[in-house]
Amino acid sequence: MCRWLAYSGSPIRLEELLLNRDRSLIDQSLHSRLGATTTNGDGFGVGWYDDANTPRLYRTVHPAWNDRNLRELAGGISSHLFLSHIRASTGTAIQETNTHPFRYGRWLWVHNGLIREFPLLRRELVLAIDDSLFTSIEGTTDSETMFYLALTFGLESDPVGAVERMVGLVEETGRKHGVEHPLQMTIGTTDGQSVYAFRYSSEGESRSLFFSTRMDALKALYPENEALAGLSDETRVVVSEPLGDLEGAWNEVPESHVGIIQPGADELRPFAPQR
Amino acid sequence: MCRWLAYSGSPIRLEELLLNRDRSLIDQSLHSRLGATTTNGDGFGVGWYDDANTPRLYRTVHPAWNDRNLRELAGGISSHLFLSHIRASTGTAIQETNTHPFRYGRWLWVHNGLIREFPLLRRELVLAIDDSLFTSIEGTTDSETMFYLALTFGLESDPVGAVERMVGLVEETGRKHGVEHPLQMTIGTTDGQSVYAFRYSSEGESRSLFFSTRMDALKALYPENEALAGLSDETRVVVSEPLGDLEGAWNEVPESHVGIIQPGADELRPFAPQR
Amino acid sequence: MCRWLAYSGSPIRLEELLLNRDRSLIDQSLHSRLGATTTNGDGFGVGWYDDANTPRLYRTVHPAWNDRNLRELAGGISSHLFLSHIRASTGTAIQETNTHPFRYGRWLWVHNGLIREFPLLRRELVLAIDDSLFTSIEGTTDSETMFYLALTFGLESDPVGAVERMVGLVEETGRKHGVEHPLQMTIGTTDGQSVYAFRYSSEGESRSLFFSTRMDALKALYPENEALAGLSDETRVVVSEPLGDLEGAWNEVPESHVGIIQPGADELRPFAPQR
Amino acid sequence: MCRWLAYSGSPIRLEELLLNRDRSLIDQSLHSRLGATTTNGDGFGVGWYDDANTPRLYRTVHPAWNDRNLRELAGGISSHLFLSHIRASTGTAIQETNTHPFRYGRWLWVHNGLIREFPLLRRELVLAIDDSLFTSIEGTTDSETMFYLALTFGLESDPVGAVERMVGLVEETGRKHGVEHPLQMTIGTTDGQSVYAFRYSSEGESRSLFFSTRMDALKALYPENEALAGLSDETRVVVSEPLGDLEGAWNEVPESHVGIIQPGADELRPFAPQR
Repeated sequence: MCRWLAYSGSPIRLEELLLNRDRSLIDQSLHSRLGATTTNGDGFGVGWYDDANTPRLYRTVHPAWNDRNLRELAGGISSHLFLSHIRASTGTAIQETNTHPFRYGRWLWVHNGLIREFPLLRRELVLAIDDSLFTSIEGTTDSETMFYLALTFGLESDPVGAVERMVGLVEETGRKHGVEHPLQMTIGTTDGQSVYAFRYSSEGESRSLFFSTRMDALKALYPENEALAGLSDETRVVVSEPLGDLEGAWNEVPESHVGIIQPGADELRPFAPQR
Repeated sequence: MCRWLAYSGSPIRLEELLLNRDRSLIDQSLHSRLGATTTNGDGFGVGWYDDANTPRLYRTVHPAWNDRNLRELAGGISSHLFLSHIRASTGTAIQETNTHPFRYGRWLWVHNGLIREFPLLRRELVLAIDDSLFTSIEGTTDSETMFYLALTFGLESDPVGAVERMVGLVEETGRKHGVEHPLQMTIGTTDGQSVYAFRYSSEGESRSLFFSTRMDALKALYPENEALAGLSDETRVVVSEPLGDLEGAWNEVPESHVGIIQPGADELRPFAPQR
Repeated sequence: MCRWLAYSGSPIRLEELLLNRDRSLIDQSLHSRLGATTTNGDGFGVGWYDDANTPRLYRTVHPAWNDRNLRELAGGISSHLFLSHIRASTGTAIQETNTHPFRYGRWLWVHNGLIREFPLLRRELVLAIDDSLFTSIEGTTDSETMFYLALTFGLESDPVGAVERMVGLVEETGRKHGVEHPLQMTIGTTDGQSVYAFRYSSEGESRSLFFSTRMDALKALYPENEALAGLSDETRVVVSEPLGDLEGAWNEVPESHVGIIQPGADELRPFAPQR
Repeated sequence: MCRWLAYSGSPIRLEELLLNRDRSLIDQSLHSRLGATTTNGDGFGVGWYDDANTPRLYRTVHPAWNDRNLRELAGGISSHLFLSHIRASTGTAIQETNTHPFRYGRWLWVHNGLIREFPLLRRELVLAIDDSLFTSIEGTTDSETMFYLALTFGLESDPVGAVERMVGLVEETGRKHGVEHPLQMTIGTTDGQSVYAFRYSSEGESRSLFFSTRMDALKALYPENEALAGLSDETRVVVSEPLGDLEGAWNEVPESHVGIIQPGADELRPFAPQR
């Protein structure tokens, strides 16, 4: 129902990926090809790590395609790591505190998908959030609840395990209330160093998610491409929906997997809910 | 690039036409079938005449589909005459003062279409607006400029003639600057008594515009339809795009014509620019 | 930190009390005399009962003094009962869902004051809200939490008792966490028939609250006053801060009391927290 | 009726002057000491030159004191030159296009004050704007009109002369229409290299304007002050109202003068309208 994008690599202006590409994220806000809804006009957010590697947020309830401040900021700000999201609400209020990315400490979090029958499950899930985290909750979305559950389960020290435990709890809670397929998700989360990209759904038919191919391979394939030339070999992009039409540039994240972009070799691992 | 709707007749809650119908105006804001753009998410406005027949406005830059205040107001306010508009900007800023309807004295005005190459023509057109009206201009759209030109040319005393002279000036000015087809428009305007609905374009291929059929005829055709039962025989709706799927309910306004809904017999007349 | 106003009586346009008076509510948004803060620019809301006695809301995060839609609506809408509020945030996010009045079913609720150390107490208080009500919570304020606690404790059947039990719980919870004076409040709440106006604080120094004097008495005192002439003898206004300067027009609600405006004789009763 | 601030010197995070100081600009938005109005809640803007010395804008209609995006950006963005403004409207609409700074090419512009009887003079002044500039006008304020008049009169090549001619025209036009004191202004404008700060009014009683003292002098006076230590000797701040309470830190710009911050020696010159 939403679209998101994560970038990690050589510092670039945000506009390079948010605005300037064919099939840029903003373009997808008006005309998504692969999304469950074609219009994603219920808010926009970007979180970036600044030159002191502090996470900063710009979030707005205006549609991304007509927000002028977004264009200015995307042109004026460079970052080595950012996470951006366009929202199509599944029912909760259109307000900045319901707009992704969510932030806690050094962590940012975006989600595409939904907890089915969330109103039914909300109280029980919210009660499972740690006392010390409770007061930081500012909105009312399923996505933010998932973030605080993951934090409760140790996101900061064991990101993959924490998300597996969060998903386990959501599925258990959902099934207890008779929800057949409680969860549909792709999730992007980062601490400013590594980026974790999850693709999972209870029904095994998850929303799309793509990784950009290794830059060295791409550069070898397209030696004349200037956009690629300046980027380090470590540079990676993760997206709900491919940007541009460069053949060979994108690999789909397999069903029930998590991809990790990190210093050193990246990883792709199976993902399984835990209780 | 926009959609609009005019209602005149038995007082009804605004929500009946803005929200509750299949293919309601709000529904069209997300998924227009006949419009030049499918998403009309750059603002919403409704002008209604209250119980003292004073025109009132509610205008917002938020997409109509996610504006809660709009739902509340449309549920709480009844009117015998209202004019509503959803906007897809053709380039000018997203702000309330660029959102339709525009109002001057007792008159309301909505426009679908554009003046081609408006930035080129703007100064000359603005200069043709009467001194006394100039200071009431609040926005920067072609649509509002057309309204103030029509007012300059006598909208309040001779509505059809004034719009014909406005169109004549816009076409003359455009052609002087080498614009082949300067104007594309459907326009709805009213003084709280009569509603004027224009369909015209320089190229003779105007955006769609529909009148609802006479209520007595419709009621005879659909005696069991409760929605129709309570409405007076005088009740009429004009829309960019039909609401609902009731066969026989809608007549297209012919190319280069103006329809007039008024006390007594309605009229449909040819429309021709004047200089 | 906020200002509010309740009106019950002969139907009048909202603007009569929100805009047109000396010391109107909107005027107070810029220059409060008696408030803890002088500027109340963090949002505005009005809830009114329409001609079918259905409660409707208009809420905005813009300052009341510069919101044009508010002026239009206040001019175009009449009601026999409305509740309005201007906000000065005590820390929670500026968003419509944190803006008063809050609504549940037929009930509206406004609050001036705060729960001290709310972040510390929030989780425990939220957990005391009934399961069936939990999913209706949309914001993050202390004020909305108090509303849902009062609903949990029977607001709809025993309004005064429910608020006394809510206050009892808040004070008990606060003191358990070492908060000396947990609560400061004036509250206005209504079901569309009766209006309940509470003044209470743990420290016994509550924010100001005033009732308008009986209309028959006022009319006798000011036989030439046209604004009063048209209003029924049942008409009452409750305000955080007096409107206008008519001597004898306002009576302060005593410390730890609740005033009830209702069909038949109004009431003024002592108020005491319950556990 | 507004407050503004210009900074030029060693690159610093915007928050240093917008948020973190005693009497910061945001603090002044709630409680101005020297302004004609105490609340400046009708919008906020900042324009900064980025690392490629391109001017970027962030403008919002929300009050500065409660805008979260502003806090994020001010924390995440550093610049060697920025211009910021908080608005108290003198009547024109609250919308981003009426919010300062205005930008044209490399130039930014902020204004505190007003053209008296602007609605009366507006058309004539707007007509004096150069054809080629006309279409860039986006709002309806006196301040933006002054900017485009100054551009018409050569702001880009002779900034002081252009502003003198603009003021001459405004005064002549005003007096022709019987306005005794047509203009009240402090103006800040910059091309990304030099900053021009004007203080002038037709009545010779202009709004306040202050320059920070030479940094080398200040550092000598306050050798232990860490905030000063890191700033180059070239660093200067111009403000409507002093920040902080450091004695000797601020010099008032004299009546009818213009100060110029530039590479090499700064200047302070008399200012006189020209026709």
